[in-house]
Amino acid sequence: MPFRVVVAPSGFKESLSAEQAADCIEKGVLRAFPGSEVVKAPMADGGEGFTRALIGATNGTIHPVTVTGPLGQPVSAFIGFLGGCPEPTAVIEMAAAAGLSLVPRDRRNPCLTTSYGVGELVRAALDGGAKRILLGCGDSGINDGGAGMAQALGVRLLDAGGRDLDRGGAALAKLNRIDLGNRDPRLSGVRIDAAVNWHNRLLGERGVARVFGPQKGATPQQVEELAAAMDIYAARIEDATGLDVGSAPGAGASGGLGAAVLGLLCGKLHPRYDIVMQYLDIDDYLRNADLVITAEGSLDGQTPFGKVPAEIARRAKEAGVPVVALAGTIGKGVRLNLEYGIDAFASILTRPCSLEDAISSAPKLLARAAEDAVRMIMIGTTLRIRGRVRAPSSIGTGMPGSQYA
Amino acid sequence: MPFRVVVAPSGFKESLSAEQAADCIEKGVLRAFPGSEVVKAPMADGGEGFTRALIGATNGTIHPVTVTGPLGQPVSAFIGFLGGCPEPTAVIEMAAAAGLSLVPRDRRNPCLTTSYGVGELVRAALDGGAKRILLGCGDSGINDGGAGMAQALGVRLLDAGGRDLDRGGAALAKLNRIDLGNRDPRLSGVRIDAAVNWHNRLLGERGVARVFGPQKGATPQQVEELAAAMDIYAARIEDATGLDVGSAPGAGASGGLGAAVLGLLCGKLHPRYDIVMQYLDIDDYLRNADLVITAEGSLDGQTPFGKVPAEIARRAKEAGVPVVALAGTIGKGVRLNLEYGIDAFASILTRPCSLEDAISSAPKLLARAAEDAVRMIMIGTTLRIRGRVRAPSSIGTGMPGSQYA
Repeated sequence: MPFRVVVAPSGFKESLSAEQAADCIEKGVLRAFPGSEVVKAPMADGGEGFTRALIGATNGTIHPVTVTGPLGQPVSAFIGFLGGCPEPTAVIEMAAAAGLSLVPRDRRNPCLTTSYGVGELVRAALDGGAKRILLGCGDSGINDGGAGMAQALGVRLLDAGGRDLDRGGAALAKLNRIDLGNRDPRLSGVRIDAAVNWHNRLLGERGVARVFGPQKGATPQQVEELAAAMDIYAARIEDATGLDVGSAPGAGASGGLGAAVLGLLCGKLHPRYDIVMQYLDIDDYLRNADLVITAEGSLDGQTPFGKVPAEIARRAKEAGVPVVALAGTIGKGVRLNLEYGIDAFASILTRPCSLEDAISSAPKLLARAAEDAVRMIMIGTTLRIRGRVRAPSSIGTGMPGSQYA
Repeated sequence: MPFRVVVAPSGFKESLSAEQAADCIEKGVLRAFPGSEVVKAPMADGGEGFTRALIGATNGTIHPVTVTGPLGQPVSAFIGFLGGCPEPTAVIEMAAAAGLSLVPRDRRNPCLTTSYGVGELVRAALDGGAKRILLGCGDSGINDGGAGMAQALGVRLLDAGGRDLDRGGAALAKLNRIDLGNRDPRLSGVRIDAAVNWHNRLLGERGVARVFGPQKGATPQQVEELAAAMDIYAARIEDATGLDVGSAPGAGASGGLGAAVLGLLCGKLHPRYDIVMQYLDIDDYLRNADLVITAEGSLDGQTPFGKVPAEIARRAKEAGVPVVALAGTIGKGVRLNLEYGIDAFASILTRPCSLEDAISSAPKLLARAAEDAVRMIMIGTTLRIRGRVRAPSSIGTGMPGSQYA
């Protein structure tokens, strides 16, 4: 039997899709160990790549839709429909209409950016006859609590004077009343299942504005402004619907879009891999694998909390398969991953360089890193230490194949 | 028996001595595998670190000497005397008096820089009673063929008018006659053994000016000027001594200093590890090792031709021990090292950064890289592939311990 490697990377933001990353890693593995059997399983969370991953796995279809971008500009987005599914099921990733990558760095201000285009994608799905919508959350560039999405679907957000609010998260500070009377009636005939990071809350110290506001471009003052606006937004949703979205798991996903799915669209939130892994199930592959290689643009202390490498590691550990993670940047707190099932990691970089250079060389660097990692691992297979040493504590915990004897 | 690792790095130029590099790697190994037995064997070639390595290994002594630097400025240099040696034996590294790191980047011009200070170090060794001198070559910032060194020891280099030449390699174009009459008479009572890169020639297409001139700051025109000057210099040495230094192995070492050792000081040239390994012998350590980790600032297609990692790999392969090389920069042609006994390599970098950042973080990065490499190798020890796969061609060649069965 050959050496069997499951390659299950995430995409690398701004440089490689998950499919491309898997191709690069395969190339490297085969260079280091030509006889290997490589199974590619490109992964997605709810963010960029969610639609293509699910459509790819089911042989579904992709449809272009032009919508309102996070800055109000028109953007070319898309929705998908699953293949082989009796119930017409649309797939939407919110990042296609309101992702951070659609906001140029010098215009990042989550007080103003809007999720309006996500609502337009939902409308397109309804127009297409969807009876179910899988809505991927992640990589957002907004902090409007999904208010824009709700407005695009007929929900009215009114100030004390009865006027519709402007778009953007900061405007929600003036929210006085939510009017659901004009909500798109087709929403009552469709199931919306959103794939969210279950750890993301809407309000409080660990709420969306404080945790994610800064990386979307908010100043400390804007963070506080947005946090206060989210408090008011949650209170008005409760006034209108009786639902408490403030502390619901996942309601803080994608700048609070989860809150609107739950409170204003009557959808459901799910831990994202519960949805993703229905279509990208790798447990079968893992059962017969010798090694798993996963990858993500960045690996750090946040990775265990819902990122692709952590989910892969969790499943690989259940199958007793060792896990290598490759990343463009190895960041602060990365060792925490050793406790969550990643056995070793490596950066793809080979020399001092700028972020731009690293991004443009990513395909080559990732292939090379996979090659180098496999060579390093192969040294271990030659060591004469079996039976002589005990496994170090970070290796082998719970791994059936990990005894040195 | 514990897991035994021999740590045998070179220094990292401008950031870590070989001793410091060994300490960093040890730290990383112990973090990944706390029970390991680490043997540190910091390495040197003939360049920076040569004196301290030999003095450290023999418990010898170091003595400061102020000499003329490559630009004519006074520099604080040093010589050593070996410990435990019945015959008083001085150790000199030419880089201490005429190294590239003594020439600021904006003043690098090998037409003008001089090895005069190296001659002053030799004089200091003679003053100290040396009967033998070990002269390390490498990391030079000059291309004067060792003319300055010879002048400092009384050799006269005269132009057609009988005037002493100015210092620097370009001046040798005017060399008409060499007068050995005033050469320091003590030189006839001392053995000079120079440790050189055996591949370095003085003249021709692969001669010192053309191969090393550019990295010392020479323009293409200056390279040709220096190459022509070296031709004249070799011819005049032959006129004066009958010795042909033009094609002698190692005569091109350190900007041609080897030629002067051989032709004007009656010394001998030796492949550098023949000298270094008399004092830093690691073969004993290797016999009982499970793994060797070596390191150098840069690993590339030039490494197999005389760099520390290649020498370590050669010896490790004879002992059947796998070799990992860590480097700040993994450069062009690095795969050639796989054919010369290095089984796997990794860069120490973990994120996009400038060269300056990499240099200032080198201690931390190197420790981390060693830790990560050992974790990666440990995965191999857990693999269930023994007996199922054949070793890939690049692993295990000639290694007694490399069978997968």
